[in-house]
Amino acid sequence: MKTYLDCIPCFMNQALRTARFTTDDENIHKQLLDFSAKHLITIDLNKTPAENGEPIYRKIREITGVFDPYKKIKQQSIKEAQKLYPIAKQIINKSENKLLTAVKIAITGNIIDFGINNDTNISYDLEKIIEQDFGINDFDRFAENVAKANKILYIADNAGESVFDKLLIEQLNTETIYATRGVPVINDVVIEDAIASGIGEVAEIISSGSHAPAAILQLCNDKFLDLFYSADMIISKGQGNYEALSEVDRSVFFLLKAKCNAIARDLDVKINDIILKAVNV
Amino acid sequence: MKTYLDCIPCFMNQALRTARFTTDDENIHKQLLDFSAKHLITIDLNKTPAENGEPIYRKIREITGVFDPYKKIKQQSIKEAQKLYPIAKQIINKSENKLLTAVKIAITGNIIDFGINNDTNISYDLEKIIEQDFGINDFDRFAENVAKANKILYIADNAGESVFDKLLIEQLNTETIYATRGVPVINDVVIEDAIASGIGEVAEIISSGSHAPAAILQLCNDKFLDLFYSADMIISKGQGNYEALSEVDRSVFFLLKAKCNAIARDLDVKINDIILKAVNV
Repeated sequence: MKTYLDCIPCFMNQALRTARFTTDDENIHKQLLDFSAKHLITIDLNKTPAENGEPIYRKIREITGVFDPYKKIKQQSIKEAQKLYPIAKQIINKSENKLLTAVKIAITGNIIDFGINNDTNISYDLEKIIEQDFGINDFDRFAENVAKANKILYIADNAGESVFDKLLIEQLNTETIYATRGVPVINDVVIEDAIASGIGEVAEIISSGSHAPAAILQLCNDKFLDLFYSADMIISKGQGNYEALSEVDRSVFFLLKAKCNAIARDLDVKINDIILKAVNV
Repeated sequence: MKTYLDCIPCFMNQALRTARFTTDDENIHKQLLDFSAKHLITIDLNKTPAENGEPIYRKIREITGVFDPYKKIKQQSIKEAQKLYPIAKQIINKSENKLLTAVKIAITGNIIDFGINNDTNISYDLEKIIEQDFGINDFDRFAENVAKANKILYIADNAGESVFDKLLIEQLNTETIYATRGVPVINDVVIEDAIASGIGEVAEIISSGSHAPAAILQLCNDKFLDLFYSADMIISKGQGNYEALSEVDRSVFFLLKAKCNAIARDLDVKINDIILKAVNV
């Protein structure tokens, strides 16, 4: 996906939000906004938003020296999601189409309000999620491909959501390799988060090597790239990975929720739609 | 009010939104984002957001040559608001405290969804508005000052809302001068919009001379400045005028709705609170 002009103010917002999350020093916040402003004048709009945004996240690490500002938040999200795991599993097991229900829960897992600890509300949220229709629904092709695949590469997105990825991987019933980011970036999953989410029980966990908030192929390691081109099926989670991989010459199933104008425009869907899109399949 | 770091990404958003509203040429949109990015690196955060944003709006006029991109929208907003005028007037006349009800309708007039042409919904919206409590409520001092003033300067904000300003001016029952922007900027009221809103029937209309989306005193003409320092009472509408005038050494009553984080933080209120704040009174 190319970078839309809408992404430019959004990068400035992301820079400020992440800077504030990392340090209370307002001088550093301003320094990072200035860096972002200079950087955004020079970007190539034909590159993906993931590529154009990456230097901002790198700069935050460089200026602040903080390697994983979201560590605690990620741990907490995983812990809260794990409380929902048995309820979500029960919903999947009771559903008519277990794979479809697991897909929906995996896509929308990251929007559940982890602040609400009341079990009734949580069940209600999960029930609502599985009732939501897809903006793009290539589930039939997804199910066909799962049935015939021997090896699936599953590209992870956020921590917390990763617990629901486990539920989907269980339903895939196929050898799965779960690829995380190479270093911490925002609240994206790294290897230790995947382990904490229990992914090790259902899949092999590897690092993609990418230090961007997406699996940008130029930033990925050889092991990931080998799998990317040899696996029978690729499942890509979230907006960042869609941005980075939507125009790659490889068949990919994208599972995401369209959270911003740029993505919604690129996919020709409404904001907040849930998407299961097959590309080059 | 000083410029908050939150204002910086917001200026980028405003630049893109206004550029898109003015022309379909994406090159101009990008050119304006680049100009804004360069400009925002150099701004003095001790200046007001109105001052720091002004060059962006000036640049839009310079690059596009379009003097009043919001002209049609403003005309339409005024027309729609005029349909509500009799309903709003009836609500004021039936209310226990007519001045207070007129203040609330004048503050929140600009949030009414002009797309809804169903009279029942409109009455409902207006009724809801007057039930809303203030985040800051200096109404008692406001009413006292109205009662003893012989000449009131009323600094306008948006077109459409201007029709509801007329209702408040009627309740002031005092000689009122209604000051508009000097040139069109976003959907702010200029002299011809004030006339179209019927303000001429209840007040003298003057131009402040400001070409910014706020009455920045350094940009205002002598007539406005004379009145600013000689009127018995000043009523300032909207966020932009609050940004520009909140720290001016003059007593001012600010009527606004807190629509963004920066304003809410500055006023120590919640977003969407309605505000009647007396400063230096």
